[in-house]
Amino acid sequence: MEIEINVSRNLTLLTDYYQISMMYAHYKNNLLDKDVVFEVFIRQNPCEGGYSLFAGLEQVIDYIKNLQFTDEDIAYLASVYPFDKAFLNYLKSFTFTGDIWSVPEGTLIFPNEPILKIQTNLLQAHMLETTILNIINHQTLIATRASRVVYSADGDPVMEFGLRRAQGPDAGIYGTRASYIGGVAGTSNVFAGKMFSIPVMGTHAHSFIQSYASELEAFLTFADTYPQNTTLLVDTYDTLKSGVPNAIKTFKIMKDKLGDRFRNFGIRLDSGDLAYLSKQARKMLDDAGFAEAKIIASNDLDEFLIRELKLQGAKIDAWGVGTNLITSNGCSALGGVYKLVAEKEENQFLPRIKISENPEKITTPGCKKVVRFYHKDTKKAILDLVMLENESIPENNFIAFDPINVWKKKQVKNFIAQELLIPVFKSGRLIYTSPSLKEIREHAQRELESLFDEGKRLKNPHGYHVDLSKALWELKHDLIEKVRRG
Amino acid sequence: MEIEINVSRNLTLLTDYYQISMMYAHYKNNLLDKDVVFEVFIRQNPCEGGYSLFAGLEQVIDYIKNLQFTDEDIAYLASVYPFDKAFLNYLKSFTFTGDIWSVPEGTLIFPNEPILKIQTNLLQAHMLETTILNIINHQTLIATRASRVVYSADGDPVMEFGLRRAQGPDAGIYGTRASYIGGVAGTSNVFAGKMFSIPVMGTHAHSFIQSYASELEAFLTFADTYPQNTTLLVDTYDTLKSGVPNAIKTFKIMKDKLGDRFRNFGIRLDSGDLAYLSKQARKMLDDAGFAEAKIIASNDLDEFLIRELKLQGAKIDAWGVGTNLITSNGCSALGGVYKLVAEKEENQFLPRIKISENPEKITTPGCKKVVRFYHKDTKKAILDLVMLENESIPENNFIAFDPINVWKKKQVKNFIAQELLIPVFKSGRLIYTSPSLKEIREHAQRELESLFDEGKRLKNPHGYHVDLSKALWELKHDLIEKVRRG
Repeated sequence: MEIEINVSRNLTLLTDYYQISMMYAHYKNNLLDKDVVFEVFIRQNPCEGGYSLFAGLEQVIDYIKNLQFTDEDIAYLASVYPFDKAFLNYLKSFTFTGDIWSVPEGTLIFPNEPILKIQTNLLQAHMLETTILNIINHQTLIATRASRVVYSADGDPVMEFGLRRAQGPDAGIYGTRASYIGGVAGTSNVFAGKMFSIPVMGTHAHSFIQSYASELEAFLTFADTYPQNTTLLVDTYDTLKSGVPNAIKTFKIMKDKLGDRFRNFGIRLDSGDLAYLSKQARKMLDDAGFAEAKIIASNDLDEFLIRELKLQGAKIDAWGVGTNLITSNGCSALGGVYKLVAEKEENQFLPRIKISENPEKITTPGCKKVVRFYHKDTKKAILDLVMLENESIPENNFIAFDPINVWKKKQVKNFIAQELLIPVFKSGRLIYTSPSLKEIREHAQRELESLFDEGKRLKNPHGYHVDLSKALWELKHDLIEKVRRG
Repeated sequence: MEIEINVSRNLTLLTDYYQISMMYAHYKNNLLDKDVVFEVFIRQNPCEGGYSLFAGLEQVIDYIKNLQFTDEDIAYLASVYPFDKAFLNYLKSFTFTGDIWSVPEGTLIFPNEPILKIQTNLLQAHMLETTILNIINHQTLIATRASRVVYSADGDPVMEFGLRRAQGPDAGIYGTRASYIGGVAGTSNVFAGKMFSIPVMGTHAHSFIQSYASELEAFLTFADTYPQNTTLLVDTYDTLKSGVPNAIKTFKIMKDKLGDRFRNFGIRLDSGDLAYLSKQARKMLDDAGFAEAKIIASNDLDEFLIRELKLQGAKIDAWGVGTNLITSNGCSALGGVYKLVAEKEENQFLPRIKISENPEKITTPGCKKVVRFYHKDTKKAILDLVMLENESIPENNFIAFDPINVWKKKQVKNFIAQELLIPVFKSGRLIYTSPSLKEIREHAQRELESLFDEGKRLKNPHGYHVDLSKALWELKHDLIEKVRRG
């Protein structure tokens, strides 16, 4: 039986048990109708980088649309704890009825600004937290990592090859989706290719060579099958003594046989010193008259190794990146959080704050919006301003200030302002149509172009400014003082 | 519409495109009926540890049972490349008809020994590679990581809390499954709890506190709802000045009200210095007469931090571990591989080897079995011996030797021998029944007990020996010489 997991996968129970515990406690205390606002934000960019690339909204929407406790789910919950029947009936009829705003996928985001905002009742807000974070944390992490790898490849195509090392099927499937948003040219993952219309790519494995009497026979068989797209893996026996010479022989035989109908061919290096081997192979290919043959490299690549190889003059035309991209090795999680910022009392939303001994963990209270200011001429992003929802967006020059070191000020002028959060659900109704993945990817490219180069540096980038409006800053500090006074 | 993803999720297209490319090239060259043997093995243990804990077989079995190209899949493939109609028809009727042997889940495994062996025709062998690796690499990684965390907790319960940071839904679901195999006591993940009958656990979040007029009111509300299982999060405002005193007040009020019917209570620390705060909180709880109150800690824990906290005398009774476990942060992938070791020619399997400039990457050829030798009295594992399938298992004392430094010899005596690979599929028919997850977890505990302590050290453990039989060692070296001679 075939299952369209992208259409109708029911992830309702994919939540932390404490959400159910809290929902029940609130339910028992008649807080069902209490309206609240929660915000999702990140505290740090992945890999100590200068930005993040937001991804996962389409899957968040699917998740919310498919929310539905089945009878089996209810029976299971009843087996875990003796919840009141009334509460279980409430769950059975559970459906999302609130509002959600989100940054569009492929948008640059930065720490400490709301990227998704949910306004609904307390129980629904708890219900949605964990899966929203799971999806956004994963895809934003991988989209960001992919953009770093693509940036280091400096125009060369990057291919996502990581499925066999991904953290389970979804990590492969949605990780590939996110990688494509981040700029990879294609993937080896056929499932993701079909599901999201991502170009699929791939050649052959070492074992393919072993199934024929000789490397040359294997190469000829492969080239004969794919005369218009042949990449030969040359490191099964000895790259420079066997693999490249046999690839050249193959190309000659195929050219003699098919002329220009043999095209788009090249070799893949998957071990050894990629800088040295690529330079030697390039020379051998050129000397044999195959300047058009491409050299593809793979083998534990990441953004730093690609950069180093390029600095050393490696002659590599395209990069296959697996493990380090699909698992974001070295920084394998993004710590996006979901925090209460306002609660309705007597028909108005009152700001809420969470204090912490750790100043970075103090939340910014209130119902907010985020405005990005772009320079009118260069189109580069200048800074983001987090404002109270009811504040007007500056139309003329204004002074922004750093929310920690408030004496650091910046005059913002000659700008175009853009609000980042857009409505997605209104009273439970989906009012947003996700762009195609290709459109999201193009949006991400434009977004990356809007970021100054210093913010894209792989290590120790220049930090992009996310400031608070004066009114918001004052509200936050008033509330901190109030709490500290007890 | 509800979907039982554990029963019938069709992952047939979840493969690298090059598998399809190779299958087609082989198909066109009439290699469809060529029988081959591939083996899965790891080259290194995760996190530079001394062992790995095998997991994922049940999902591999589900995957293989559900293999079925749908019409839509076939149409998609036809859109990717103009494959022959005959090949597409072959795919449409694709089903696994071969044999598979595997190590049971929860078994200790070590580098360079076969952990799963597949004997079938060439096309089927290619078809299955990627997803088998995806599943086994993920679950084995997380099971191993979990066992390290549990080892460092030295008898205290460890709870898996990582869903919101997992790399997508499956990474949360199957990562939790693997964590349970590795020894965690329970999980926050309700979906996994239901799917695999894993105990679900959890308390409340900071935002719960914020929804009530005061911390004390929130605590009382929660305790009142869960009088037989209340853990109060004490760091929302100020752990020692507000959280712990309010928790103590709550415990007093509840004890006064319910006596012994108020039980299983405690606090959770989620920020600040866990060693200092736990010691202070312990003293405050004890002084108030609540020696029975448990202290649970969370906040970016891993095996090293838990060990350090314990060394510093932290008074923590249970550990909630999230990000670093569920993503195996710092070592986010296991590099299990799938290599051709034999091909049938004229009715017999001939050994195949893959040579590499990197000696660690040279494969061990031939159809093999793995035998583990345990000391008859201590029941500790002595070493593993990889042997040719038709060799007899030693019954008496024998000399094993290191396959690299062959002068390193060891007399093996007073042993019980056990073969590790057991039959799972025979001619495409499933002949194995997966144990329950609880049984797998118990098996893993016994397995870990069979490993000497020096092999469990978190850093720089003593390496466990995986040796080759003399016949296998000679076969391997003869083949290397043969290839090197050309």
